[in-house]
Amino acid sequence: MTEDLVTLADVEAAAERLDGVVKRTPVDTSRTFAERCEADSVHLKLESLQRTGSFKIRGASNRIAQLGDSELEGGIVAASGGNHAQGVASAAAAHDADATIVMPEVTPMAKREATRGYGAEVVVHGEVYQESYERAMDIAEQRGATFVHPFNDRAVIAGQGTVGLEMVEDVPDVDTVVVAIGGGGLVSGIATAVKAKRPEVRVVGVQTEGCAHMSESLERGEVYERDSIDTITEGIAASRTEEYTFRHVHERVDEVVNVTDADVTAAMALLAERSKLVTESAGAVALAALVGDYLDVTGETVAVPVCGANIDLTQFADYAKAGLAALGRYRTIRITVDDWPGSLASVAAAVEETGATVDELSRMPQRSGVEPARTELAVAVEGSGPEHLERVAAALDGQPGVTLVE
Amino acid sequence: MTEDLVTLADVEAAAERLDGVVKRTPVDTSRTFAERCEADSVHLKLESLQRTGSFKIRGASNRIAQLGDSELEGGIVAASGGNHAQGVASAAAAHDADATIVMPEVTPMAKREATRGYGAEVVVHGEVYQESYERAMDIAEQRGATFVHPFNDRAVIAGQGTVGLEMVEDVPDVDTVVVAIGGGGLVSGIATAVKAKRPEVRVVGVQTEGCAHMSESLERGEVYERDSIDTITEGIAASRTEEYTFRHVHERVDEVVNVTDADVTAAMALLAERSKLVTESAGAVALAALVGDYLDVTGETVAVPVCGANIDLTQFADYAKAGLAALGRYRTIRITVDDWPGSLASVAAAVEETGATVDELSRMPQRSGVEPARTELAVAVEGSGPEHLERVAAALDGQPGVTLVE
Repeated sequence: MTEDLVTLADVEAAAERLDGVVKRTPVDTSRTFAERCEADSVHLKLESLQRTGSFKIRGASNRIAQLGDSELEGGIVAASGGNHAQGVASAAAAHDADATIVMPEVTPMAKREATRGYGAEVVVHGEVYQESYERAMDIAEQRGATFVHPFNDRAVIAGQGTVGLEMVEDVPDVDTVVVAIGGGGLVSGIATAVKAKRPEVRVVGVQTEGCAHMSESLERGEVYERDSIDTITEGIAASRTEEYTFRHVHERVDEVVNVTDADVTAAMALLAERSKLVTESAGAVALAALVGDYLDVTGETVAVPVCGANIDLTQFADYAKAGLAALGRYRTIRITVDDWPGSLASVAAAVEETGATVDELSRMPQRSGVEPARTELAVAVEGSGPEHLERVAAALDGQPGVTLVE
Repeated sequence: MTEDLVTLADVEAAAERLDGVVKRTPVDTSRTFAERCEADSVHLKLESLQRTGSFKIRGASNRIAQLGDSELEGGIVAASGGNHAQGVASAAAAHDADATIVMPEVTPMAKREATRGYGAEVVVHGEVYQESYERAMDIAEQRGATFVHPFNDRAVIAGQGTVGLEMVEDVPDVDTVVVAIGGGGLVSGIATAVKAKRPEVRVVGVQTEGCAHMSESLERGEVYERDSIDTITEGIAASRTEEYTFRHVHERVDEVVNVTDADVTAAMALLAERSKLVTESAGAVALAALVGDYLDVTGETVAVPVCGANIDLTQFADYAKAGLAALGRYRTIRITVDDWPGSLASVAAAVEETGATVDELSRMPQRSGVEPARTELAVAVEGSGPEHLERVAAALDGQPGVTLVE
């Protein structure tokens, strides 16, 4: 027998279970994003400010809240390198259940420690997620513990759907909802709630090109699995969805688009600069579809969950700069100069006279093709846009003794 | 005649004027900050998510809303390199009044452009704020325009006080409110509202040492002016308060403490990492008093406005790393190695074996004291804390051919 799809009643029941357990996250309205995509308004549902730093606690809590006492006593097991780990660990702790989370070897220390911080046992195993997953299934079987799937589960999808329920309440005139897709749990839940409440609302899913599988699955009409993954958005870097989840996407999601990593960093930079929010790369994927102009939302009211913010600060700093570069506001101009350090001051002054800011100025190692009497410099410059940075490059080019490296 | 202090009625009238004009900003609860200062709970009032990126729009809007038609026609003038500029520009635009903002020469381009973005005319004049201020006063006189002071003004203080009104509503059991001080407008307004509503609540002001003037003024019982300013918190870098404002602080603020710039960056890093918020340095000053343990709030309910978030992303990235360093989680370890680039891989591997992350690895220019056959490297490392980074240094020291530079 095929399992029925998640219903609005499931999502509403989840909302009752989650009341007081998860935050009702705020909605922020962004003029910046609305202007960029010519929407009437863009409303950001800030699940990045959710407990545990992402929406994942909703699905995990809804699942674990429905376990009986003996199941809770048997413990919870999950496999995740990211937000699901923290969601499960936190939800298990709230029910006094032991949690064991298998994390891939590449999982950053910060995420391991955050997961341990919720009282979970962390088992580091597997070069890729599939290996962690298999180990988690083994552990669950050995111990008679309950495995909580990150997305392909009725209760998990219903829990994530509560985001959609809140969005249609908070943005009653919404025309289009845009949601990031990893495995597809969030978009399935949101589409379930939104389409039941407001069938005319368009629900769009977004993936990055380097882990896109859902558009291909939709085209084939069956689950498609990628061979490889190549993206900075590790929070949504699944190689495939699963059958049960796919049926939700197939029936309830109108469209799936794929964006580039550069679009994602641009969205991260705008979120940080204008909306004052730290997000992880996956948290900015849905907005990247608006920033990169993948969707026509002219004149519409758009709602977008900003779905996660678990990222190392040093990585965030790097992505934010990459985002400024993607927006044409940050550029590393390579030049050669006659001597060092005499020309350094004049180089910096030439940049600053144009009103731009020197972020870094580094001497490059000597390399072939550069005359020994000359020195190559990398001048990382922040400006107001591509034209401005073009003027900076021209100003440098006009300095005596300076040559641009093409 | 001495002007009366601002009253609760003034603040309540301001709240009515501001209804629909400014955002009711959300309050976020932070376990991280509560744990660090042993408070029962710490509640962050997110004025960093306010329109224009800071609370300043409240005071400016309350002031401008009370101008008559002929005054609005005469235009508005202000002097500010930061948040007050955007607050005035936005409020003036809302009343269809021309605004002229005089900004010091050091004002970053991004802030000039943001101010122009609200339709204001920007005049760049003055090496320090005082010179901009005098030019603004001249312009106001010449044009018969209205000058809006950044803090020393009944309507401005009343407007900022609406933050306090919202805080006692949102955190009804608050014991202590902690507020950053620049000129003193925000703390005066908040103290007015809070003490009127809940006289037993303690109100604490915070400055950074490099621009601290208020504690000295309180000690002397009169306004004290600093000779110089030396701090990263340019958003609160005033050299003095004014008489009218001082009377509010003197009568209504219980205590003023001074923190270091390092404490501020630590608070910024924790706000970014745990609360997922981008803030400017001044926006983290009040929290720095909790992070740096300047206040005994054991067991208390604490409320803190996070008051601003207008900062260049590249600067934010730098401060966030500085904050990790202040928290003992980021350290640049200098070593010399036998050759280059052979030892590079082993250096990186030695760091990563300890579970720490190499953020940057740079070869330093040759300098005296280092044998020509050896190369000096700067290894910037992120770890879980001081002990962890000490283990990293020891691991590097234990590598064949590697010597730590003391």
